[in-house]
Amino acid sequence: MANHPVRQFQVRTHATSEMLDITEQIEQAAADSGVTNGYVIAFVAHTTAAVTINENADPDVKHDMLTKLEALVPRHETYYRHAEGNSDSHVKASMFGQSVTVLLERGRLLLGQWQGVYLCEFDGPRPRSVLVKVVET
Amino acid sequence: MANHPVRQFQVRTHATSEMLDITEQIEQAAADSGVTNGYVIAFVAHTTAAVTINENADPDVKHDMLTKLEALVPRHETYYRHAEGNSDSHVKASMFGQSVTVLLERGRLLLGQWQGVYLCEFDGPRPRSVLVKVVET
Amino acid sequence: MANHPVRQFQVRTHATSEMLDITEQIEQAAADSGVTNGYVIAFVAHTTAAVTINENADPDVKHDMLTKLEALVPRHETYYRHAEGNSDSHVKASMFGQSVTVLLERGRLLLGQWQGVYLCEFDGPRPRSVLVKVVET
Repeated sequence: MANHPVRQFQVRTHATSEMLDITEQIEQAAADSGVTNGYVIAFVAHTTAAVTINENADPDVKHDMLTKLEALVPRHETYYRHAEGNSDSHVKASMFGQSVTVLLERGRLLLGQWQGVYLCEFDGPRPRSVLVKVVET
Repeated sequence: MANHPVRQFQVRTHATSEMLDITEQIEQAAADSGVTNGYVIAFVAHTTAAVTINENADPDVKHDMLTKLEALVPRHETYYRHAEGNSDSHVKASMFGQSVTVLLERGRLLLGQWQGVYLCEFDGPRPRSVLVKVVET
Repeated sequence: MANHPVRQFQVRTHATSEMLDITEQIEQAAADSGVTNGYVIAFVAHTTAAVTINENADPDVKHDMLTKLEALVPRHETYYRHAEGNSDSHVKASMFGQSVTVLLERGRLLLGQWQGVYLCEFDGPRPRSVLVKVVET
């Protein structure tokens, strides 16, 4: 099993909250590595963003997910103490998680028909970095 | 490190929301692979289901978890736009996550005494597929 | 790729809900393994605790995260059936998840500048075990 160095790509988000499809960048990282069987770990090195897997077809799903999250974890609460004012983003980041693992077989990501990989911005707009490790096995 | 192909098994869920214990199927996939040390990745290739690890003893825990999730993310909200009417399922799926990793040592899953692996159905009843990758290391 | 046995460390929590920084223990496990490139899987073998990655700078973030979680998932609900009275802890555990994966390069964890790894206690105070698997690749 050769060591495939960690790759990194940047995205720019455009709103306070946003789900940005990064499936293509993950596929590209897998292709660039030359690995055909194994899996890919995508990791977001931020504390107010997350990465998740969800529906890639109807954009209304993203709207509904983000609106529900905002309703559950609004920007302001009387009990928030963190001076930056983005405590909600930290909560949402841990709810959705910092990494996803996607299996890879014969050079293809084993995502379901309706699955895409999303960077979830919860405190944008900002530039964001995603680390990708392709593991051969 | 030999390549152990991705395995797949099917389950059938029986309710709109359900936590179905799939620990045995994961153990079987590990046993079938012949791998004794490493870990197992279980991945749900769906956007309205999840996989999580939680209590395997008192079934009331599943009831309480699903009821609380339903209270937090009810089926209908005035602001939902997604025409399929299952936006809640997408939110819950990302809250719980699409994959779990369980360590494997001497052929045994390193789960805590009270831990089981669950497929979480949030838009059932349906047939569901779980992918399992056993990694030797 | 040599097999690096699963390591385990104990922590003691001091409150019902607490986020305990375990970054140093994870770094130590990585250093002890001698692995310089790969990744680390940290796994909590409990059903009322979790592990997550979040802000390591302002302690108010932990306060705000735990207070928000408590507001969303309070200790008692009329519909809870589980006799132990800790159903909330089980919900929070699955929301945040049982494991994290952190990439490792040149002997260094690839965490963002503001990221730390946290054991999340949701039903303490208690002693808790964290399993760590260091994977070389």
